[in-house]
Amino acid sequence: MTGVIRPGHAQVRVLDLDESVRFYTDVMGLVETGRDDQGRVYFKCWDERDHNSYIIREADEAGIDFFGFKVLDEATLDQLEKDLQAYGLETTRMPAGDLMETGERVRFVLPTGHTMELYATKTAIGNGLPMTNPGPWYEASEKGIAPVRLDHMLLYGPNVAENKKIFEEVLGFFLVERVLNEEGDGEAAIWLSCSHKVHDIAFAEYPEPGKLHHCSFLMDSWEQVLRAGDIMSMNEVNVDIGPTRHGITRGCTIYAWDPSGNRFETFMGGYQPYPDYETITWTFDNFAQGLDYPQRKLHETFLTVVT
Amino acid sequence: MTGVIRPGHAQVRVLDLDESVRFYTDVMGLVETGRDDQGRVYFKCWDERDHNSYIIREADEAGIDFFGFKVLDEATLDQLEKDLQAYGLETTRMPAGDLMETGERVRFVLPTGHTMELYATKTAIGNGLPMTNPGPWYEASEKGIAPVRLDHMLLYGPNVAENKKIFEEVLGFFLVERVLNEEGDGEAAIWLSCSHKVHDIAFAEYPEPGKLHHCSFLMDSWEQVLRAGDIMSMNEVNVDIGPTRHGITRGCTIYAWDPSGNRFETFMGGYQPYPDYETITWTFDNFAQGLDYPQRKLHETFLTVVT
Amino acid sequence: MTGVIRPGHAQVRVLDLDESVRFYTDVMGLVETGRDDQGRVYFKCWDERDHNSYIIREADEAGIDFFGFKVLDEATLDQLEKDLQAYGLETTRMPAGDLMETGERVRFVLPTGHTMELYATKTAIGNGLPMTNPGPWYEASEKGIAPVRLDHMLLYGPNVAENKKIFEEVLGFFLVERVLNEEGDGEAAIWLSCSHKVHDIAFAEYPEPGKLHHCSFLMDSWEQVLRAGDIMSMNEVNVDIGPTRHGITRGCTIYAWDPSGNRFETFMGGYQPYPDYETITWTFDNFAQGLDYPQRKLHETFLTVVT
Amino acid sequence: MTGVIRPGHAQVRVLDLDESVRFYTDVMGLVETGRDDQGRVYFKCWDERDHNSYIIREADEAGIDFFGFKVLDEATLDQLEKDLQAYGLETTRMPAGDLMETGERVRFVLPTGHTMELYATKTAIGNGLPMTNPGPWYEASEKGIAPVRLDHMLLYGPNVAENKKIFEEVLGFFLVERVLNEEGDGEAAIWLSCSHKVHDIAFAEYPEPGKLHHCSFLMDSWEQVLRAGDIMSMNEVNVDIGPTRHGITRGCTIYAWDPSGNRFETFMGGYQPYPDYETITWTFDNFAQGLDYPQRKLHETFLTVVT
Repeated sequence: MTGVIRPGHAQVRVLDLDESVRFYTDVMGLVETGRDDQGRVYFKCWDERDHNSYIIREADEAGIDFFGFKVLDEATLDQLEKDLQAYGLETTRMPAGDLMETGERVRFVLPTGHTMELYATKTAIGNGLPMTNPGPWYEASEKGIAPVRLDHMLLYGPNVAENKKIFEEVLGFFLVERVLNEEGDGEAAIWLSCSHKVHDIAFAEYPEPGKLHHCSFLMDSWEQVLRAGDIMSMNEVNVDIGPTRHGITRGCTIYAWDPSGNRFETFMGGYQPYPDYETITWTFDNFAQGLDYPQRKLHETFLTVVT
Repeated sequence: MTGVIRPGHAQVRVLDLDESVRFYTDVMGLVETGRDDQGRVYFKCWDERDHNSYIIREADEAGIDFFGFKVLDEATLDQLEKDLQAYGLETTRMPAGDLMETGERVRFVLPTGHTMELYATKTAIGNGLPMTNPGPWYEASEKGIAPVRLDHMLLYGPNVAENKKIFEEVLGFFLVERVLNEEGDGEAAIWLSCSHKVHDIAFAEYPEPGKLHHCSFLMDSWEQVLRAGDIMSMNEVNVDIGPTRHGITRGCTIYAWDPSGNRFETFMGGYQPYPDYETITWTFDNFAQGLDYPQRKLHETFLTVVT
Repeated sequence: MTGVIRPGHAQVRVLDLDESVRFYTDVMGLVETGRDDQGRVYFKCWDERDHNSYIIREADEAGIDFFGFKVLDEATLDQLEKDLQAYGLETTRMPAGDLMETGERVRFVLPTGHTMELYATKTAIGNGLPMTNPGPWYEASEKGIAPVRLDHMLLYGPNVAENKKIFEEVLGFFLVERVLNEEGDGEAAIWLSCSHKVHDIAFAEYPEPGKLHHCSFLMDSWEQVLRAGDIMSMNEVNVDIGPTRHGITRGCTIYAWDPSGNRFETFMGGYQPYPDYETITWTFDNFAQGLDYPQRKLHETFLTVVT
Repeated sequence: MTGVIRPGHAQVRVLDLDESVRFYTDVMGLVETGRDDQGRVYFKCWDERDHNSYIIREADEAGIDFFGFKVLDEATLDQLEKDLQAYGLETTRMPAGDLMETGERVRFVLPTGHTMELYATKTAIGNGLPMTNPGPWYEASEKGIAPVRLDHMLLYGPNVAENKKIFEEVLGFFLVERVLNEEGDGEAAIWLSCSHKVHDIAFAEYPEPGKLHHCSFLMDSWEQVLRAGDIMSMNEVNVDIGPTRHGITRGCTIYAWDPSGNRFETFMGGYQPYPDYETITWTFDNFAQGLDYPQRKLHETFLTVVT
């Protein structure tokens, strides 16, 4: 318990900004909260209270630029910066305001090649409901797929074991589930939590560094996952897998691709582990059931298509 | 409105009787209600009130022997027998008791090569709940997948257009939905109702006669379809498609195979059409969306794997 | 099976037309389809295909003017008119067009004092989805509570036993469930079906004739019933009972009142009975469980508040 | 973030042990895990991994003896003990093994008169699923109401403001929601979290100290809450409120009483707050909507019936 509290933002590259804004606004039902002079567009899920959680910028190639976890306060940020440096990682301070409505960020590169950040400050703008006598939702919160929050990311790259060490030893995460590699002597994929969510971040071993498998958005129910699938079809979104249940995490899912080919997930359910829980292990030969519980099918795209 | 009220029974061939009894009892959660001296085993879904709806017999090849629709009473049966004969179909009376707890059946062969029956009498044995102050369900009704009833069948064979004429003109069904063939000048598949279910029976054009695509069992909710998928995985049932939503009928589904390779469906939802409703048409080029609404994927097995 | 197919319309009196139009449009999410020179406003549920199902007019007192069932065709209407007359009921033909987009209606007064109609023709205007390759729903279909159809009515009045005779013997309904009176020698309430819905209409014994207990609107799921309750609260609708499950019919429900005090129900579920099903009986002493299954509570308002 | 991780156990008094064991086993579907020489019976929810979470003992009066929160490790326990003492609270060490399969507990009495404990050690016995390739549930996990875990407690007593100070300043909880008192100058009730659950514990101002309002058990879905209500009715459990949604926490609920009159809750949903979230406030005049969102009804029993 180091004070890392949740995944707070991810910056993703898209091929056509206007098309992507339309997609994330009208189809995903995210709320656009701002644009900056670098041309970036900022979104949040309706039930998130901080200013932004999902940021896109136009580029020639899809993928993820960086992601950030919010920490408890600035003192925690300072401490974690020291801890990361003591561990041997190089850190950079990104200035406050470089990301809209966001304070200073401590940035570092993970052994898997992903750029990660910690930050303590992001302006709270609320979820559109009053702070006194709020309803459970409101009309605008039903527009599009309308997930309640950015839930987690799955990232692909080399050296997953080294990432795990940093997350466990420096950042205070615990290992919730894992898939063994074919030889059974290491981990092909790991699911880590800094809370009692079944995962706040996950990594899978992959030869190329810095790859994005998917950003996951939380839905409130299995019926809402079905509705998300309906909306995907109505809008000709390319669906990868689902609706189905994962064996790993017990969560229910649809994987699909945004117009630039970035995979995203509409996710719900799963159980709630705690730091004192023993890690659950999936054997390589049973990964198919871990991925798609009813079908027990190892979808090729899951293993090979990343941005 | 000719007095045909619902699909009442289907007799299906299995390769290994004991294994199949275990499957339909423990995994599907059907209730075994009897065995006869021909070696047939009779089942019903827990919430059905008549003695049997699903009958299996051991054979060298999987598939469907025949299926039957219940009619209102014996007078209706007599009238429909005459109407079928007047239409030009040869009918046979199967004696009462040939099928356990079932009265006389009027049997005939459809142009698609399927043996169909009408009958008016089957002993009511109830659904396990009292007729006075019943609860909505009971503990044993949750065993296995536990569908509430045999819902419909999809059958493959040639001459679907001729079947349609019999169902519409003699048996009083109406055409709820249809898929056009590639040329757009005929129907590749039709969904027919004798009630206000979105389908009581369906046919698809196929070169070989008398083929079974699937028998469908009704679930109470989308959550129960997910639970069915869990149970399939726990019991290593081979799943074909789903969980997903059909565009056609709006129903939600998992297709899977019994141990002999007979496909079955766990189904819920859809809308409730009436005889005055205009038929909904799916174009051939959009059949993928009709089959698997979120994925818009034309699963090859759906078109080619039958028993 | 006489050709009566479903409850097709109900005309209800409201105290303030503008307020009621706002309520039925914005809160209930019905679709306004027309107004006539008598000042009536016509609505339909989004998934109904006929022009109207729920009609309101301004009056000094809330309540129901009449309700109508659709029959298969004009020949059926003629036959049923003769059958009603032969039974001894006086019938009146209401001219085509008197009710917007509706053909001739055969009107008669039931022993409980309710004005009932049969009709064969109402213009089909569709549900807002195309007849070719339709999606399962669309954005506007999620506005407000948005039930899929007018499902049934519960009416209070004297002489329920005489009503039952007409519905069973002339109109071809069957008795699905019933509550015995305190003495156990008659029925306090009856649930009747002309289809395989668990009820198309229901009556309860009450000293005053012609009273409306509620019109019921169908929801697609238990989650949609919860959402309906949320919307009621957001709009300060007075809720009577629920969300809960009925023991009777197994259906799930919220009862609430429109701004004029007319009770309505948002309903889902229940089982699907057929004409060959034995009637289920609830004893008077257990009516509480029949009404509110979890709470087993005999809500006083259910017995006494009608319009 | 002090290392308090979750509510781990509650010890509740029952009037008849055998009847209560039957109730908690057969109706609630808890798993009995042991009995000790003091005559106490230990239960856990199926998906909990530690040996026990709910303990009952026979007594002349219903109510709660004590409840305990698990902390990260023994060092955390030592630190929190010191912090509590430094704050001015008297603490007692309960010896390891006094509670079955549980290590030393640091016990203290809250200003509301409730006995609270912290502990770091309880034997993990698992949830009945393997640690390698587990399914999402198993047959025995569906027996009875079968909640997944002990979720939180609501306790009634005086001096709630003093409790809040201890939970916020010493134990590291944050205030998620609160109801103002009638005068608006203090809090009538508070909901506190040590995680990102919408509440790990709650207190309401009440003249008598040490009172139990309810222990809450987590269900997986709104459909499971309905099923819980069905089971309550089948077993003649006295239901207090629900099924319904709370405005406070957005959670969905049924309140009912065990055979001794101890209220319990079957709960699901709600949102997931974090320590950086601003507290939500409910005004006294709108507490009815906070309690029962659809009905906006201030159930008298909620305010007055405790054990």
